[in-house]
Amino acid sequence: MEHERKPVELRPEVAKGYLTHAEFGRVAFIVDGLPVIRPLNHVVVEGDIIVHTSHDSAFAQAVRARPDLPVAYETDEIEAHSHTGWSVLVRGTATDITGHPRAAQLGRQVPSWIDRPHDAVIAIRPHQVTGLRLTIGH
Amino acid sequence: MEHERKPVELRPEVAKGYLTHAEFGRVAFIVDGLPVIRPLNHVVVEGDIIVHTSHDSAFAQAVRARPDLPVAYETDEIEAHSHTGWSVLVRGTATDITGHPRAAQLGRQVPSWIDRPHDAVIAIRPHQVTGLRLTIGH
Repeated sequence: MEHERKPVELRPEVAKGYLTHAEFGRVAFIVDGLPVIRPLNHVVVEGDIIVHTSHDSAFAQAVRARPDLPVAYETDEIEAHSHTGWSVLVRGTATDITGHPRAAQLGRQVPSWIDRPHDAVIAIRPHQVTGLRLTIGH
Repeated sequence: MEHERKPVELRPEVAKGYLTHAEFGRVAFIVDGLPVIRPLNHVVVEGDIIVHTSHDSAFAQAVRARPDLPVAYETDEIEAHSHTGWSVLVRGTATDITGHPRAAQLGRQVPSWIDRPHDAVIAIRPHQVTGLRLTIGH
């Protein structure tokens, strides 16, 4: 039996709430004119998406090469069986804040799922946060 | 207690296997010089990632505006509690195949989680497929 699946646009406050609750997402950025996408852990602090990565990662290199690097960020939670859940989409700009006084403290707040050098702290400032909820109609 | 989490690079065949098994991912592409990311359902047919979307979606519009549109595609499965799982990254090019003889049949193979017009069939040809497994060391 197939139910009707209704996409519902999230109110911005609700989308920001999901983003804050999530620990994991994917960042998209441009390197040499080509789109690149990478999974990352994050934490939201005062509205900024803080990620902690390696100095040598493609993302850290791109951010250092261009101040206020335009990025897109996506996080979602889709229940595998019912296919219900939500997806949040962010457009913003990324800045390397590794040298800032609060960087070490912010970096420590980001959950780390991989044992790699985490020596770059990057802040993504959201300019737009939108989202979609997938529900099953009855 | 904190275990050691070791990232292991997936062999290309294994990464392609995960991609084929998955039904859901995120595509990144460029619109007006800015990165855009969108969640999508997919099916892998003869090595191509087939997605079915609306003619008016940002992705379908970008693909029509530029043949062989460069894209990145990501799919992952991360277990929320243990933070173990995998992520697969694809670099490739996307083409609108809506008018092709096999498009309707290919489009019907893509799982559809959203009740929206799905009148564009797009094939992403992977040029590179890489992946990472997150495991917990003992």
